Amino acid sequence: MSASPIQTDPLSSAERDAVYKCIFNRRDVRGQFLPDPIPDEVLGRILRASHHAPSVGFMQPWDFIVVRDPAVKRRVWESFQTANREAAERFDDQRRPIYRTLKLEGILEAPIGICITCDRKRSGPVVIGRTHQGEMDLYSAVCAVQNLWLAARAENIGVGWVSILRHRDLRAALDIPSSIWPIAYLCVGYVSHFFARPELETAGWLPRVPLREVLWFDQWHNRSGSETLLDHLD
Amino acid sequence: MSASPIQTDPLSSAERDAVYKCIFNRRDVRGQFLPDPIPDEVLGRILRASHHAPSVGFMQPWDFIVVRDPAVKRRVWESFQTANREAAERFDDQRRPIYRTLKLEGILEAPIGICITCDRKRSGPVVIGRTHQGEMDLYSAVCAVQNLWLAARAENIGVGWVSILRHRDLRAALDIPSSIWPIAYLCVGYVSHFFARPELETAGWLPRVPLREVLWFDQWHNRSGSETLLDHLD
Repeated sequence: MSASPIQTDPLSSAERDAVYKCIFNRRDVRGQFLPDPIPDEVLGRILRASHHAPSVGFMQPWDFIVVRDPAVKRRVWESFQTANREAAERFDDQRRPIYRTLKLEGILEAPIGICITCDRKRSGPVVIGRTHQGEMDLYSAVCAVQNLWLAARAENIGVGWVSILRHRDLRAALDIPSSIWPIAYLCVGYVSHFFARPELETAGWLPRVPLREVLWFDQWHNRSGSETLLDHLD
Repeated sequence: MSASPIQTDPLSSAERDAVYKCIFNRRDVRGQFLPDPIPDEVLGRILRASHHAPSVGFMQPWDFIVVRDPAVKRRVWESFQTANREAAERFDDQRRPIYRTLKLEGILEAPIGICITCDRKRSGPVVIGRTHQGEMDLYSAVCAVQNLWLAARAENIGVGWVSILRHRDLRAALDIPSSIWPIAYLCVGYVSHFFARPELETAGWLPRVPLREVLWFDQWHNRSGSETLLDHLD
């Protein structure tokens, strides 16, 4: 008798609907973090879900750094502050004042940060599936980010991805060696509420793109032949 | 009265468990595809879930090309064949014969392919969150891949990511312009069954890395101070 069965059960329609609820209600959280600690068993589940992301050639190239030390968080936050001031200058006169009003991170408020990295040499020089697309290891680590994000949402825990950071500053704050690629710094914690829509959509920064405008059939920019699918997009 | 509420409901513990079931039972499918067509309403749900991935600055940089034409699939498959022969040569004498026995794609068997791309200029020259990490648009498109993968699993539909392909061949097969970055070519379809474990793990190619070996606290390679979390990883 094997410890694991060969096959797995199908998901029920109720389980399917739960997955969609999680996907559609996931938000990038910046300002609604509560200080409540995340129990170890909950954090353990979220990390396990992230670790079960797909990875090219089963490479599992990720590491996780859980940040709880306020001094470390402050270093990351200071790096964000520097980068964010520079970022504001890059927007035009019309966008810049709006940009400056946006809250774009919750580094200090979130009870923990989680940095996900990619070790590009994890499983040796030749990796199945990476021979012709060298970036696949980085993409695997991004899949781990998205798994973590959805698992957290399933636990009613918010996640915000802070990308207004220089990699070299993040490496310095967390003592990450130069051989390791930072992928994401995530703010993680319980929240007062989840918004129904992305904040940048609500703020009028950009609209949701209609799905039918980015959907093609058989060839780039070909729309013919699949009108019935287009009826099921909204 | 707004068409959308400001806040969303929490997920129940049953809904949480469904999300974990989906995450832990997701597989990279290569050999179990059935020819059954995917109903438009099901495919529409999966694509909508992918389109609701997080994206840097709400950029939504992705396009989706749904491939049903057997002639187009064949061109993609021929590109895979070429790349896969080259790939085999890169493994050492011990690994090469094993590599050649592995089934690594289901391009022709899967009823559809879905190519997800990234338009790096989608929302203009300056994007919130991309000022200091230029790769964030690519990572957003990868999050769309992972959303699609999990939504498909929730529908009991298998997905396999084929990365043993040259981008230029994929562009040629699907008429993708050079300004657009291919992210993933996915084989998508109902399956006879989902394996309980990744095929490369079962085949003994690589083992599952113990999570505790890639988990750190506050600083890279620091393990002290979080022994209680380590107890909750297995």
